[in-house]
Amino acid sequence: MHIRFVLIDTAQPGNIGAAARAIKNMGFGNLVLVNPQVFPSDRAVWRAAGATDVLESARVVDRLEEAIADCHLVIGTSARERRIPWPIANARDCAEKVLGEPEGNQVAILFGREHSGLTNDELQRCHLHLHIPSFEGYSSLNIAAAIQVVAYELRMASLVQRGVATIDNSWDEPMATSEDVEHLLSHIESVMAESGFLDPQNPRQTLTRIRRLFTRLRMDSSEVAILRGMLRAVGKGR
Amino acid sequence: MHIRFVLIDTAQPGNIGAAARAIKNMGFGNLVLVNPQVFPSDRAVWRAAGATDVLESARVVDRLEEAIADCHLVIGTSARERRIPWPIANARDCAEKVLGEPEGNQVAILFGREHSGLTNDELQRCHLHLHIPSFEGYSSLNIAAAIQVVAYELRMASLVQRGVATIDNSWDEPMATSEDVEHLLSHIESVMAESGFLDPQNPRQTLTRIRRLFTRLRMDSSEVAILRGMLRAVGKGR
Repeated sequence: MHIRFVLIDTAQPGNIGAAARAIKNMGFGNLVLVNPQVFPSDRAVWRAAGATDVLESARVVDRLEEAIADCHLVIGTSARERRIPWPIANARDCAEKVLGEPEGNQVAILFGREHSGLTNDELQRCHLHLHIPSFEGYSSLNIAAAIQVVAYELRMASLVQRGVATIDNSWDEPMATSEDVEHLLSHIESVMAESGFLDPQNPRQTLTRIRRLFTRLRMDSSEVAILRGMLRAVGKGR
Repeated sequence: MHIRFVLIDTAQPGNIGAAARAIKNMGFGNLVLVNPQVFPSDRAVWRAAGATDVLESARVVDRLEEAIADCHLVIGTSARERRIPWPIANARDCAEKVLGEPEGNQVAILFGREHSGLTNDELQRCHLHLHIPSFEGYSSLNIAAAIQVVAYELRMASLVQRGVATIDNSWDEPMATSEDVEHLLSHIESVMAESGFLDPQNPRQTLTRIRRLFTRLRMDSSEVAILRGMLRAVGKGR
């Protein structure tokens, strides 16, 4: 599906720039501005920080109707001060719903004014309301910050769908084997015994703690090799 | 656990204000500034938009060591340009890890410079690196936007843990029962027949589509009552 971010009556041009940046860094590019108070502007370009292509291709319209006329799914961000309840979901569930849309569908996500959000009339044109569960005591979310969160959730949902949400935690060295670690532990034990460090009253406790430490670590083979090299050098010095 | 957000060498005071706002609207309040270039400042207060208490209680220190000395878990945000691989996770998995920390533990999350992020030396002081999976073609994430995403994931993880992440979708009217909907469908059918609208060649198709529409809708009882009232009125007029 195709996603557009629709900003309504935005007062601060800096927020438009920050919105463009937020959209682009999450892999989107379709920005629609309904009646922006100042646009274009240097401030927006500055805050866009390289996402100027999103600003340049932004569509500016006078009325919300023009922004959503061809849309199949319209979602409005809401602080939940509605008189008549409307279908509502958090940003994560909304993102999942959007990702489930048929391929050709046009999806619009609406963001309201800095101080007053979307009007009731605007919210009633939406199929679904999106609520970012901010802290009850201070729910003031900057509009570009809200766009960042929504775009981030859409990107995460798309990465999850493609099975690539978890970061590749590849390592530069192969993991140590159980045998490598057992050799290291024997080596440590013999160095401890030879040096007189091992508590003769309670050798087991110390060795068990050392075993727990190095088992918990999940070392790679180069780390085991470095520690064993150090132990050998210490042994020679004595 | 206790979470602090640590900003290192922040150049733009506006970003410090936006960071304070992002932290507060997700229910956090502990901001540490390592060597900020301008602080305090009017710009930060303006962008904080009511989160000035977070700015006022922010701790300013000269060196990273002071910011994290008492911390049990240190996480560094990273764009993944490291020479030696380090344990790394996305923001969601990091948040889950933080939420799993023992209660008394101090957790620091580090955010680097606007243009260059954290240094290798700073990243190597971290137990874990956090990566926000931004778009490969444009991964430039504003620092306050990154803080917003991380703080949002921490809040979501905490809401999930408390079982309140899904928004209460309570409705003002009870749902319609199957019987309510059957009565409505019969009513529609009879109005269609009386008005001559029903296609005598193919009544089933139309009725099946009407049935599918109103079944899919999951109406509430007041909606059924309104539609039946309208159908009654239309019937009387004829």
